[in-house]
Amino acid sequence: MEAALLDGRRERGRRTRESILQAAVDLASVEGLDGLTIGRLAAELGMSKSGLFAHFGSKEELQLATIDTAREIFVETVIAPAREAERGLPRLQALMDNWLGYMRREVFTGGCFFDAARGEYNSRPSGPVRDAVWADFASWSEILVNRVKAAQAAGHLDPAADPEQVAYELDALGGAANVRFQLDRDGVWFERAHQAIEARLEALTVH
Amino acid sequence: MEAALLDGRRERGRRTRESILQAAVDLASVEGLDGLTIGRLAAELGMSKSGLFAHFGSKEELQLATIDTAREIFVETVIAPAREAERGLPRLQALMDNWLGYMRREVFTGGCFFDAARGEYNSRPSGPVRDAVWADFASWSEILVNRVKAAQAAGHLDPAADPEQVAYELDALGGAANVRFQLDRDGVWFERAHQAIEARLEALTVH
Repeated sequence: MEAALLDGRRERGRRTRESILQAAVDLASVEGLDGLTIGRLAAELGMSKSGLFAHFGSKEELQLATIDTAREIFVETVIAPAREAERGLPRLQALMDNWLGYMRREVFTGGCFFDAARGEYNSRPSGPVRDAVWADFASWSEILVNRVKAAQAAGHLDPAADPEQVAYELDALGGAANVRFQLDRDGVWFERAHQAIEARLEALTVH
Repeated sequence: MEAALLDGRRERGRRTRESILQAAVDLASVEGLDGLTIGRLAAELGMSKSGLFAHFGSKEELQLATIDTAREIFVETVIAPAREAERGLPRLQALMDNWLGYMRREVFTGGCFFDAARGEYNSRPSGPVRDAVWADFASWSEILVNRVKAAQAAGHLDPAADPEQVAYELDALGGAANVRFQLDRDGVWFERAHQAIEARLEALTVH
């Protein structure tokens, strides 16, 4: 009986924590991770500050948990489903399409959470939040490079191309659409990004 | 005598305003335009808040004047010198080189001022600061499109290419280096950006 009560309490706690973090990722994608204070989020959720403090002991802890949540959502939305596509070029194209779709559909209210966090923290001194932002960017870059290498290994893309250079270009051509779309709400930027990425890959394709 | 005294006072006021704005663009390029409060800037400059209020009546006025100053510096550093190059492709290439150099040399402490401002304001509701950020981005995009069109008109670039698409790609390929360099301080990103831009233009060049 006591165990069941404790389990129920723990389950409610977990669900509250999840809904707090969902609100936190949306708020941070619009106003930045630095705007993510316990007070600001409590006001947003209609909770007390002390209630929020029970879940996150500090602003920094809240920021780091928010980045973790955003990463899980990104992996589920962009990276995992691309693994269903055939190895090589189709998988790389699926990754690009999922990524553009994730930015276009605004899975986070303010567009790409990581693009916003990078822009906010890139010039700041080192610290746990900046380091987490950096680590996620390094992982994304590594995934891109690996997908390009796999497409070369599968015989789909020119083996003479520098995978680091190709990955840089694909990321640049796609990422620019997010900022522009957030500025003017014109979906044409994702068509431009898609066209640019397809043309870049086509130029490298072994026919 | 009185006129001379007043002139001297006006001149000192102008110079003080200029040095405040120079500090403001650097601070905003690192910490964002939203972090640019009269109190924060007064502390940075060792001035009194009331002294700063004499120059800028509000945070918003300070932010808008800071954007104006950053724009002047950008025009002087990137756009104006490119006009010395020959019309057409050389002028477009000079514009790209000046732009990459401006980001690489960190004319503003935190890298490209406008990239930082765009990232910070793109998802926020409309207002004078966001509108100024938007207008500057629209001007930059228009300049790029016009330089591509001029290179086509001069017979240097393929007239069948869509200038809007080419401008999107050039901006994306160059701009991505700024964020990455600010994250990891590795100059290789500007070489990647330069290589990508040159390859894109080469593919469009009429030989």
